[in-house]
Amino acid sequence: MPAPRQVFIAVIGVGGVGKSFLTQLQSLSTRLSQSTSPIYLSLILLGRSSKMLFSESYRPLPLSNWESALSASTQPVLPAREIIDYLATAPEKAVLIDNTSSEELAATYPQFLQKGISIVTPNKKAFSSSYAAWSDLFSAAANGTGRGGYVFHESTVGAGLPVLSTLKDLVETGDEVTKIEGVFSGTMSFLFNSFMPVGGGGGTFAAEVKKAKELGYTEPDPRDDLNGLDVARKLTILARLSGLKVESPTSFPVQSLIPKELEGVGSGDEFLQRLPEFDERMDKLKADAAKQGKVVRFVGSIDVPKGEVKVGLESFDTSHPIAALKGSDNIINFYTKRYGSNPLIIQGAGAGGDVTAMGVTSDLIKVLRLLG
Amino acid sequence: MPAPRQVFIAVIGVGGVGKSFLTQLQSLSTRLSQSTSPIYLSLILLGRSSKMLFSESYRPLPLSNWESALSASTQPVLPAREIIDYLATAPEKAVLIDNTSSEELAATYPQFLQKGISIVTPNKKAFSSSYAAWSDLFSAAANGTGRGGYVFHESTVGAGLPVLSTLKDLVETGDEVTKIEGVFSGTMSFLFNSFMPVGGGGGTFAAEVKKAKELGYTEPDPRDDLNGLDVARKLTILARLSGLKVESPTSFPVQSLIPKELEGVGSGDEFLQRLPEFDERMDKLKADAAKQGKVVRFVGSIDVPKGEVKVGLESFDTSHPIAALKGSDNIINFYTKRYGSNPLIIQGAGAGGDVTAMGVTSDLIKVLRLLG
Repeated sequence: MPAPRQVFIAVIGVGGVGKSFLTQLQSLSTRLSQSTSPIYLSLILLGRSSKMLFSESYRPLPLSNWESALSASTQPVLPAREIIDYLATAPEKAVLIDNTSSEELAATYPQFLQKGISIVTPNKKAFSSSYAAWSDLFSAAANGTGRGGYVFHESTVGAGLPVLSTLKDLVETGDEVTKIEGVFSGTMSFLFNSFMPVGGGGGTFAAEVKKAKELGYTEPDPRDDLNGLDVARKLTILARLSGLKVESPTSFPVQSLIPKELEGVGSGDEFLQRLPEFDERMDKLKADAAKQGKVVRFVGSIDVPKGEVKVGLESFDTSHPIAALKGSDNIINFYTKRYGSNPLIIQGAGAGGDVTAMGVTSDLIKVLRLLG
Repeated sequence: MPAPRQVFIAVIGVGGVGKSFLTQLQSLSTRLSQSTSPIYLSLILLGRSSKMLFSESYRPLPLSNWESALSASTQPVLPAREIIDYLATAPEKAVLIDNTSSEELAATYPQFLQKGISIVTPNKKAFSSSYAAWSDLFSAAANGTGRGGYVFHESTVGAGLPVLSTLKDLVETGDEVTKIEGVFSGTMSFLFNSFMPVGGGGGTFAAEVKKAKELGYTEPDPRDDLNGLDVARKLTILARLSGLKVESPTSFPVQSLIPKELEGVGSGDEFLQRLPEFDERMDKLKADAAKQGKVVRFVGSIDVPKGEVKVGLESFDTSHPIAALKGSDNIINFYTKRYGSNPLIIQGAGAGGDVTAMGVTSDLIKVLRLLG
């Protein structure tokens, strides 16, 4: 029997995804410690924006009552530079789990990787900013051209759905991806499946936005969904993995659903109050589509051979899989040379703490195997 | 820079999948040899039932003109025992790619694994025979409880679609799979999408079977599809990966579409000639479903908590994703605790040389990473 292995885990971010992840980490940790080739996962650092808890002696922190332990912590909140030093000098390999959406933390990933620290994250920022940042990141990573830690980010697109792994498999085995098209936002999916369900009905657009916000399907300020940037970031990641050098999520056409007249509005509440003034435009779109037997959906698409990426409203026949989507599900259609006229389709919940955390946990398992 | 790595590859089976795989292997081999951490894939053994070609000095065989080289070979066809010796004494790690559907070769997998030889295969036999054989296999494998080679078999279900990897991710991250349901046979998909398309139409059942055979969608003897065993084998694999101890593919209800009266018929041709005598039964099923606004499909399902597996005809609302399937596509719905009422869906071509070989190539890449 080889000696049991230990891997150190640092988790930053304890919001919806972070909480679900810590629950999953606890079960995974128990399971791996009891397997025939045991691996001991030791949580040694836990942080959120205003609090941090870390083990000075690298002894594991408690996973069962992390919430109270973190609240009670009087340790300083370490800057990224010091977290890197702390993890790089750990007596065993370390993995950073970034469950935040922090642009600042994301900017430091290459330094983590260079020090041999692996990264698993649902945070889109590092993968959807400038192309130079993307190149730097994968130049440092062991799963890029570098010799540092590994970086996995399945949950940056479609949450726990196997979207990026499938695209990588297609590309790596030599298939030619010709087009990727789908609904990449749980919020937009819910909004348009309610606004214009197949078979008729649905409220006005402003009313549906209000309802979606009340049900917790939107960001605190719904404009952060309606501006299309979240979808544009996801498309940037998919396009880059397909081989396109997309400069940034604002370097291709992205349709914002925020009326031009409301762009200057101060608060999200004021925005919601004034949105009904523009319902007529959305009603016209709806009526035009209905006349052709179609429905309107907010989609993203990538034409790989042409190098074209776009995000916005499009109409689909009611029999199209994109039209038939339910609830807040995502759907991703991969059209490739091998798959021919019928695409390879991945569909299911693309948002929510548990399924997003599942993508993170599954990536962590992949990293553990590679750290072998 | 670490020294470049070499991995030895043995390929048995050069039919539709085997041919496509060898083409993909050639591109992969070129790509990996040119990467920043080069890996040299050396094909050292190539075989089909009546011919074998191997390199006595472990120098790579030519990948570009393998077909003529294999035909010209005067080397003996080695039995599995000797192939194992040959690969186990190779100066570097070896991977066996079994592109046959041989039960005999499959029975020897544990011996390959015990000698540290990894296996990648679309051959269902080893994974869908007795539960004891399944246990023996994974007891020997490095990705089971053993210390031998790795075994990957993504293409045994849904060809290149990410079905098994997704199920493993769900299980390993601690989700509870409650039900798996879908169309798992390209032949059955084509047959029922033609026999009873959504919206009406379609020929008699016997005529559609004949057409499917003429178009190359069935096995040479269509009874090998219609008996349901192929789907039962796939369900056996999925159920076992879900944690059920399914004894064999004949240990649960499997509906055969071969009329009882024709079970004793000698040849496939005679069977096809007599099948129209039983069209009335299938017409009745079709009419009964249509009355309820449904269509008939040949599906497999696993109720995990109840431990129930079954394969056979069921009716679905025309709006159900299973009803809306096109061509010879497969669809697999995973219902889980985390995904809630809307399943995680994987859909696309589930048969064909190129997509099946893609699953094999993608598994080979995974093994290469793990051999690190």
